[in-house]
Parts: sequence; C-alpha cells; structure tokens
Amino acid sequence: MGHKLVWQGGTVLGPLPLVLVTSRGPDGRANLMTAAWCGIVCTKPPMLSVSIRPERLTAEYVDASGEFGLNLVAADMVRQADWCGVKSGREYDKFAECGLTALPASKISAPLVGESPLSLECTVRERLVLGSHILYIAAIEAVQVDADLVDSSGALDMGRAGLAAWCHGQYHSIGEDLGYFGFSVRRRSRIRRERRV
Amino acid sequence: MGHKLVWQGGTVLGPLPLVLVTSRGPDGRANLMTAAWCGIVCTKPPMLSVSIRPERLTAEYVDASGEFGLNLVAADMVRQADWCGVKSGREYDKFAECGLTALPASKISAPLVGESPLSLECTVRERLVLGSHILYIAAIEAVQVDADLVDSSGALDMGRAGLAAWCHGQYHSIGEDLGYFGFSVRRRSRIRRERRV
Repeated sequence: MGHKLVWQGGTVLGPLPLVLVTSRGPDGRANLMTAAWCGIVCTKPPMLSVSIRPERLTAEYVDASGEFGLNLVAADMVRQADWCGVKSGREYDKFAECGLTALPASKISAPLVGESPLSLECTVRERLVLGSHILYIAAIEAVQVDADLVDSSGALDMGRAGLAAWCHGQYHSIGEDLGYFGFSVRRRSRIRRERRV
Repeated sequence: MGHKLVWQGGTVLGPLPLVLVTSRGPDGRANLMTAAWCGIVCTKPPMLSVSIRPERLTAEYVDASGEFGLNLVAADMVRQADWCGVKSGREYDKFAECGLTALPASKISAPLVGESPLSLECTVRERLVLGSHILYIAAIEAVQVDADLVDSSGALDMGRAGLAAWCHGQYHSIGEDLGYFGFSVRRRSRIRRERRV
C-alpha cells in the first residue's frame, strides 16, 4: 500500500469507454463527436448516460431529435476519434473527413458508424444540466454488433472487439483477460451454462 | 467493415471502470460493493455517477449517509473485487474477509480502500430511480492517489496504475498506450506544456 496524496476533486476515473456519439440535425446533416463521459446507468430497462457540453453541435442535434448513437471505438480508430474530439462539426463533415461509413440505424434517425465493432441506438429519457456538461440519460433501444464477435451460441465476446479506452488524457488498448464474473466462487462449467440461458 | 447483427437493447458498453464502492452505515459499519455501472458526468464541477440496485446494503448506507467512496481496482485486486461483487455485506465483513485496508477519507465518513491506486470521495447530489438500479449523481469532493503514480511535475500517469476494466462479463487489464489527447493534430511538446499549467 503506497503513500497517498490527497487532492481536491477531479475526474480521475478510468478506464472509461471511448465512443463516437452520432446525431442528426433538423436539416438532416449527420455529425460525430468523441466522448468518454458515458456509462451504463441501469440494467433493466437497459439505459446509459452520456455527458455533452452545451456548446457542442451534438448537444444541439440531440436536444432537437431526442436521439443519438453511441459507437465504440476500436484501437485502429483512435486517430480518427482523436481528430473528432478536437474538431467541430460546425466546420467539418466529420464522416467524410475521417472516411467513416454512416450506417442506417434500426430504431433512430441518427446514423451509426459502420467501422465500430459495437453501436448502441439510444433515445433520451432525462436531461440534467450539471455544470460544464449536460447529462443525457437514455434508453438503449437497439444494438448493432459485428457478427464475428458473436459465437455459435449467440454469446458476445467483447474482449475480441479490440476496443480502446480513455485513461486520464491517454488512449489505451484493452489488455489480457483476467477472469469472468463469479470466477472467485464458481466453477466455469456452471457459468457457461448460465450464460447460454 | 463486418456484417452487423441487430439486437434488442442491452448494456453492451465497454470497457467500463471496475470499482469498489465504500460506504458506512448509521451504526458505523463499513461496507464494500463492486460496481462497473459508473462514469464521469461533469468536468466542472467534477461529478460522477454510480448505479446501485436498491436491495443492496450499499444503497441503504448511501441513502442514509449521502456519501460514498469510489475505489479503482488494480489488476492484482480482481479476485477480491469479484468476491465482493457476489457476496453481501449483510453476511460478511468484506474488508476483513478480503484483507483490504479501510483508510480514513479526508472529506467523507465512509472509508476508502488503501490498496486502491486511486480513490474518489463523493457526496450525493441527485438520486434517480431508473428501474433495476438507482442512479446516484455525486460531486467528487477529494481524490486520494498513490504518490508513485505522480511525476515530479505533479502529473498523474493513470496508465501506470495497472487498472482493471469490466468488458461484458469479463475482467481485463489495460493494454498499451495508443496516444495522448490531441495527438492527431498537435505536437507533443505543446501538449506537455499545456498539461503542466
């Protein structure tokens, strides 16, 4: 146990998911924004949150449409995600500039990012102005997942998606598998049966 | 770009932070709970969210005290975190069972986990019942960080903390460094200057 420094409060939580938030404006224009201030907030019904600065074009589009896509970033998309995090959709067509594919969603009008291994289609349920950021709490209406991440039993292996993470100013890949939920108390054979149900 | 499967909504976001939520009951008893449904929700003021099932002892303690600690889990703590995620504080003294050190916090009455490389001291600002989980939105009042993660200029290198992540039912380590924020458009020398301000 190391010596501790006590600091004033700061946003030093990690690793955080690195995502591209997709949205569509009232004029039909699609936009992309990089975010890491997001997370799951409820299992049933499945809900997530994402926080966006009010001055961002994405906040304008999400407020107008009540919808957005959350597209996970693979390690080989980090340069594009970084660029989308520092540039504004008011000045660039980010899909075109990054060579990313706008894929139709199944339940929302916003596009998804075709290159993302996993995309979540979301509709806004709550909106809280917290300070520098607006917190959007949204229902996850549908998920689009690369077929090659799913095994023959229908189980998703997220570890194979090669996802990137955000760690306090740095992008990181995901490392080795350290175990499955319940490994400290259960036999794997039982877990496997449960996950197939 | 792979073939996509379209699924109904689910909580397939990742990687997510793996944390131990510490709390103290009205009788002074300390408890630990493992969580991954958490994230940053605001930069200024620094705020985070964590979602907890109402039937958990931690929800009872957080509701009574309005405070909790969020303690990041290093890869070598994953077995303890897994055990704390499947057992209840109503039946076990989890600090004692796991051999973890209850460290006094600076701003809250709940203890922190001494073995965690980073701990955040939080006070609840909003509480939303969403379904299976209660969403707690909290101010980050203080941070305790292992001194050996901080360089001589005072910068925190979170990549050196050896943190664990939660990826859809599996624990993972954090992998290689893929770049710093702004690397796609800036020179590193300029970023370094900015981070020291």
